[in-house]
Amino acid sequence: MSTPSIAPAIAPGATIGIIGGGQLGRMIAVAAAQYGLKAHIYCPDPDSPAFDVAARRTIAPYDDAAALQAFAESVDVVTYEFENIPSATAEILAARRPLHPSASALATTQDRLAEKSFVAGLGIPVAPFRAVDDAAGLAEAVREIGLPAVLKTRRFGYDGKGQVMLRREDLGASGFDPAAVMASLRNQPCILEGFVAFESEVSVVAARNAEGGFSAYDPCANEHRHHILARTVVPAPGMTEETAAEATAIARTIADALGYVGVLAVEMFLVRRPDGSAGVVVNEIAPRVHNSGHWTIEGAETSQFAQHVRAICGWPLGSAALAGASVEMLNLIGGEADAWSRILAEPGSHLHLYGKGEARPGRKMGHLTRVRTRA
Amino acid sequence: MSTPSIAPAIAPGATIGIIGGGQLGRMIAVAAAQYGLKAHIYCPDPDSPAFDVAARRTIAPYDDAAALQAFAESVDVVTYEFENIPSATAEILAARRPLHPSASALATTQDRLAEKSFVAGLGIPVAPFRAVDDAAGLAEAVREIGLPAVLKTRRFGYDGKGQVMLRREDLGASGFDPAAVMASLRNQPCILEGFVAFESEVSVVAARNAEGGFSAYDPCANEHRHHILARTVVPAPGMTEETAAEATAIARTIADALGYVGVLAVEMFLVRRPDGSAGVVVNEIAPRVHNSGHWTIEGAETSQFAQHVRAICGWPLGSAALAGASVEMLNLIGGEADAWSRILAEPGSHLHLYGKGEARPGRKMGHLTRVRTRA
Repeated sequence: MSTPSIAPAIAPGATIGIIGGGQLGRMIAVAAAQYGLKAHIYCPDPDSPAFDVAARRTIAPYDDAAALQAFAESVDVVTYEFENIPSATAEILAARRPLHPSASALATTQDRLAEKSFVAGLGIPVAPFRAVDDAAGLAEAVREIGLPAVLKTRRFGYDGKGQVMLRREDLGASGFDPAAVMASLRNQPCILEGFVAFESEVSVVAARNAEGGFSAYDPCANEHRHHILARTVVPAPGMTEETAAEATAIARTIADALGYVGVLAVEMFLVRRPDGSAGVVVNEIAPRVHNSGHWTIEGAETSQFAQHVRAICGWPLGSAALAGASVEMLNLIGGEADAWSRILAEPGSHLHLYGKGEARPGRKMGHLTRVRTRA
Repeated sequence: MSTPSIAPAIAPGATIGIIGGGQLGRMIAVAAAQYGLKAHIYCPDPDSPAFDVAARRTIAPYDDAAALQAFAESVDVVTYEFENIPSATAEILAARRPLHPSASALATTQDRLAEKSFVAGLGIPVAPFRAVDDAAGLAEAVREIGLPAVLKTRRFGYDGKGQVMLRREDLGASGFDPAAVMASLRNQPCILEGFVAFESEVSVVAARNAEGGFSAYDPCANEHRHHILARTVVPAPGMTEETAAEATAIARTIADALGYVGVLAVEMFLVRRPDGSAGVVVNEIAPRVHNSGHWTIEGAETSQFAQHVRAICGWPLGSAALAGASVEMLNLIGGEADAWSRILAEPGSHLHLYGKGEARPGRKMGHLTRVRTRA
């Protein structure tokens, strides 16, 4: 079989360029180092945690064309740790070096409306949604979808930022003021999504390489607090093998349709259908390694970070098999990381701290993983 | 219990100074990063593999007092990846920051004669040995110990460098020329060690912290090729629980007597005593993380690198329990690392490459670990 469109594999000794210097870039850089690859991190923040484990660093804004060019020319392949990269930035990089995941995967997944339309177009269940560009559009969308519903900015939202929950009971005596709601999101282009009555939140973290190879970790259950991931458990409690297979098949359909290269996470709601059967509804796609995959460092044969490196280098994907009977990952948010010495002393607990300076409320400072072995 | 002599624990965010920039320093730096610590690597070689994963680097000779001072003052604790550090260097560092393992542990273990005398003084079996300072001394030592025997330089030997095997059958018709043998080792101070007829070579990798806490990995069996470690297997085949316990107790006696802080490796010979029972004879002590402990990265609850970081930071030691049924580690020497893509595709194999430039013969380029899980 000839595969002329696939770039040759990258060899150890090469340099991976990573856009973004947070904990995800940091853990990708460490995984790359295990394979004898160097990391070059590009981030505007001089205190980026990923700089501490990288062979090279560029401190420059994400729209600095000259810095981006020099960065691209110094590396062999480019990836990123977050999806809110300006399309012009992606184009500058992709014109010079292989960019994985691709600029088109990025364009689809960094806009909630494009993403929802894309997923729905694949015949995959999503929440009902409508584009909302202004107050009049919001009023109409609410009439069509009903309440409760969630209004989200189309771009640049994360960890619950850039969204407003609209509940009938919150609207008060004066009723619903679409203009005020739109103003609270600074009148940005939005999407209104019907509220999904879910039983739990799950995600499928998976990798696809350029040859179409696909490897998914077991679906995991995610618990959020204040819109921030607090805990991940795998296997996902209450999820049947059948539903897990359905969720994994959905992730593969999405990855294939995007021509995706790298690790992605598909966040889903586990729901009860009207006929009583279990099903999943896709909530969103993260075109990158994902917080709900951190458990894979100790809990799977190949970590999501190593898997991402394998995928973007054109290497065979590793085994995604669970390394124990079950795994639990707890995020350490803000001051929770102060318990580090207690966690260190806890048998079977693996502590990860990201080397961030200030433990601000809501800031992800680290995580811990507990692997329960087979009895 | 008051422990006034013990320094306060080092907190995440602190910087570990590492003398030496090879693969051991590199893997210590990665382990430190997991705990939110920064690494500052000191090494004269600008191409040091450890630089690629370190927050800071100093490129300077090991006898540059000013550079050593500035380095020490920039870090919170100092450790090293190899024992051939000049004592003046250790003193400069120890005068400014906690140095673990200590300068005295270093002095004992970097001189084969001091080390052998120290171990023998603890009542632990070692090969018969004599100090050899010149040709006359060599002739006398050979008369006393007999042949075969191994003549080794007292200092700066590793991987079989700086030693000569003396066998009766190699001496030839002209007999034994002590002056020529001494000249082949550049007339350095030496030690003659009686040859031990061993069944296999084993090592105990263990950690001790300042409070006297001790944690040893299961003894492992080591196979050498051309004096370089080729393969480590754990549990050590043919080693009874009783002998393993004896070997571990020896390592603890040595660590306690040295007041040791950090990970050390005690290399031993597994022997058959005249009465037919099994026993161990100590060969040498490495005051550092050790190649025969690389399997612990995937094969133990806590890697030797994480354990070393815990020990030198004054943290509780982690579990040294085996993570599977058995583990095998294979070094990738020179061109063996060219098989990286085949190893990547091998299920259950964990590939590690050190990011070294040229794959010279005999150079350790990486290793791979296979963990066999319980059936």
